Amino acid sequence: MSNDRELIYFITGNKHKYLEIANLFETAKVSYQLKQNDLPTVEIQADTLKEVAIYKLQSIQKNIRSSYFIEDAGFFVDVPLNGFPGVYSKYVLHTIGNEGILRLINDFDSTKAHFETVIALYHKSLDKILVFEGRVEGVISPTKKGDYGFGFDPIFVPNELPYKTFAELATFEKNQISHRAKAWNQMLKFLEEN
Amino acid sequence: MSNDRELIYFITGNKHKYLEIANLFETAKVSYQLKQNDLPTVEIQADTLKEVAIYKLQSIQKNIRSSYFIEDAGFFVDVPLNGFPGVYSKYVLHTIGNEGILRLINDFDSTKAHFETVIALYHKSLDKILVFEGRVEGVISPTKKGDYGFGFDPIFVPNELPYKTFAELATFEKNQISHRAKAWNQMLKFLEEN
Repeated sequence: MSNDRELIYFITGNKHKYLEIANLFETAKVSYQLKQNDLPTVEIQADTLKEVAIYKLQSIQKNIRSSYFIEDAGFFVDVPLNGFPGVYSKYVLHTIGNEGILRLINDFDSTKAHFETVIALYHKSLDKILVFEGRVEGVISPTKKGDYGFGFDPIFVPNELPYKTFAELATFEKNQISHRAKAWNQMLKFLEEN
Repeated sequence: MSNDRELIYFITGNKHKYLEIANLFETAKVSYQLKQNDLPTVEIQADTLKEVAIYKLQSIQKNIRSSYFIEDAGFFVDVPLNGFPGVYSKYVLHTIGNEGILRLINDFDSTKAHFETVIALYHKSLDKILVFEGRVEGVISPTKKGDYGFGFDPIFVPNELPYKTFAELATFEKNQISHRAKAWNQMLKFLEEN
């Protein structure tokens, strides 16, 4: 039976990410057969995640015959860092890290930050590109806290659950409010209906 | 007479940069006719300026029939920032700026930094891509100093002229030692010989 379902590829080199999403596909009422594909994509420098994601998607369009999607995420310190590190979050994490962000916001009275996930999907039978965005707003913690999660999680305190950083939340708690969960839920809803 | 000279394009949207290089072409013994062209290029996320420059060059190869080149530059704080901001220098300058770099290196005893310029040239009659690199090594000044120049110049002290930042040097002084001057001199030398 499952071989009759329409094929859809998650383009990622990260097996862990793929398995996480494969789980979501299993529990959702989605009639697509998900597969992983690690084709190399082109990542451009641009102002928004959406631009980066769409370019990345289109960079492999001629190499693939089914529906497929990519996921991109970023961390934005809107106040006082003008959105830094934004689309360059991965690079910044590996060079100056959480300690760097804390140095940059040190002695500012107030901060404002958000995480953002963008999923860009090329839907074959509709012949359309669709974009699903998820966002979570919060502030920067003055110190690193927590052991869960990864990346900038230890310094981000979401408005919806104040007093705790993302790295202090268990996976099921984080999944209630996270940017990623919001973006994935949107895409799954779309796929259930199409 | 000049119309017989082989055409070479400097791909840049910056008229000021173009005029500066046009001046160098005039004084050098280069038998090429230089023109500006502001075709949009694709700028990727990558680890090195060289990768970014070569991709940028190739991104317009099918749109242009003459020899042409592009120029890219970056500022790297090797110690203690692992090369940050590197290929993302422009973005970092516009978000966290020189003040951000100073906060990041604040209370470190020693720093090490360099500026780098890469020129990538597609030479039509040789049908080859050539890369010319210029570098200048130095340290970070604990405070911003000087009014000349632009970008990270006010916080960079070159090893060759210590005690002064790049922004405290007059243009003719900076041109003796700068990364840009080194890269351009290499390219002009190549063009004189080819």
